[in-house]
Amino acid sequence: MKTKLLVLKIGGNVLDNPTQLKELLREFAKIEHPKILVHGGGKIATQIAEKLGISSEFIEGRRITKKEHLEVATMVYAGLINKNIVAELQAYKCVSLGMTGADLNAVSALKRNPVPIDFGWVGDIVEVNSEIINALVLQKICPVFCAISHDNKGNLLNTNADTMASEIAISLTKYFQVELKICFEKRGVLQNVDVEESFYKCVNLELFESLKTTQKVKEGMLPKLDNCFKALQHKVTNVAIGNPEFILKPNENYTKIIL
Amino acid sequence: MKTKLLVLKIGGNVLDNPTQLKELLREFAKIEHPKILVHGGGKIATQIAEKLGISSEFIEGRRITKKEHLEVATMVYAGLINKNIVAELQAYKCVSLGMTGADLNAVSALKRNPVPIDFGWVGDIVEVNSEIINALVLQKICPVFCAISHDNKGNLLNTNADTMASEIAISLTKYFQVELKICFEKRGVLQNVDVEESFYKCVNLELFESLKTTQKVKEGMLPKLDNCFKALQHKVTNVAIGNPEFILKPNENYTKIIL
Repeated sequence: MKTKLLVLKIGGNVLDNPTQLKELLREFAKIEHPKILVHGGGKIATQIAEKLGISSEFIEGRRITKKEHLEVATMVYAGLINKNIVAELQAYKCVSLGMTGADLNAVSALKRNPVPIDFGWVGDIVEVNSEIINALVLQKICPVFCAISHDNKGNLLNTNADTMASEIAISLTKYFQVELKICFEKRGVLQNVDVEESFYKCVNLELFESLKTTQKVKEGMLPKLDNCFKALQHKVTNVAIGNPEFILKPNENYTKIIL
Repeated sequence: MKTKLLVLKIGGNVLDNPTQLKELLREFAKIEHPKILVHGGGKIATQIAEKLGISSEFIEGRRITKKEHLEVATMVYAGLINKNIVAELQAYKCVSLGMTGADLNAVSALKRNPVPIDFGWVGDIVEVNSEIINALVLQKICPVFCAISHDNKGNLLNTNADTMASEIAISLTKYFQVELKICFEKRGVLQNVDVEESFYKCVNLELFESLKTTQKVKEGMLPKLDNCFKALQHKVTNVAIGNPEFILKPNENYTKIIL
């Protein structure tokens, strides 16, 4: 049987709450089997961009990544957030390594086709270098990925953090029994968006389809859950989504995603 | 005989000149024996800090690293500069890994004693983890270090980039025949600071002492050369200082530092 490996994705407001983040990292550091962390950006990037006078542009409700946005993302995700997580994990004796997809050529991507809509410096993942990630993990190193990939031509590319986590998880099923946990500020998929306690214990593909139809699941949750199901369809054995207080605990106070 | 290893430090205006930097990285990528890159910050960090409204404070002419400065340094050095260098090297098929001292616990430091002067979040290097760096290099990975270390308690620390390069070079003499090259905008140590062609072909400790006495070497050059001599005194076999056009070439159009 393959060894267990956890891919934990941290996103949303969790990154903006130092106390909560610290506690989560302390719990994460204790996990003894192979593990990988993937993090998003939080609100800090938006705040820094605003302070630097870089305005946001949207087409059809979707943000465009201009060169200046990519620079801010590289500073905040790959620098500020990533390295502070690494320093924190080291303090808990978890040997960690902060990475983008460019480091060790770990995650290659293609700049998204500018036709029909030019989203700017956004990358769609083409290949995860599972060999190199496996080699790190075998050396008891915990890779900490921010959601920036590269195109092998010298360009960094902004990438969706949920997709990054999901693709890394999928690629490592070659070597491990992989579990993917998505951690954000909510208890999971909520029946009533205003009531945290209303989280579904379990969401399967059928329920997801009906939640989409009734628009109970929309916006940011849609791609998040799409990534969860994709992971399950590609040999990731366990997928869950929930908040930092419960996601690493055995009590399952979060939403389990199943096919 | 030990294998040759090059530690190249890139600093000063070279980082602010994309064309020059690109050319230097292309040359660097071609080097087949083990190699490590260490880079400084350039003017970008100062510009970003200004735009963010973070003012500089000096005591006795030396800059204080406030928490906000450390954050900007982490963004610019560990994020923007480091990851763009890594992406560029990958494009030249040089498998590189961008790191701070926190990553893999590679460089540990102690926050400088706040008495008599509190310099803020500045770290003095305590230990370089030469085993882990050696392990990377043996896997044909080129580590790319920015000058940020950590204290093993969860804090990142701003560190002098020349010292970082010198200490890494010294630590690796255990495994390699180490060469240290410091690359900046000048041809080397200049006899006449206004004439690039006036660079000394060679500076030894005796000449350095006399240049200090006559104040021909001062300010930023002093710690730079101190680091060069320290490296030589600790088994680094070759040390040179010069500009990007010549520093990697065999013609020795730069200043060689000898004891």
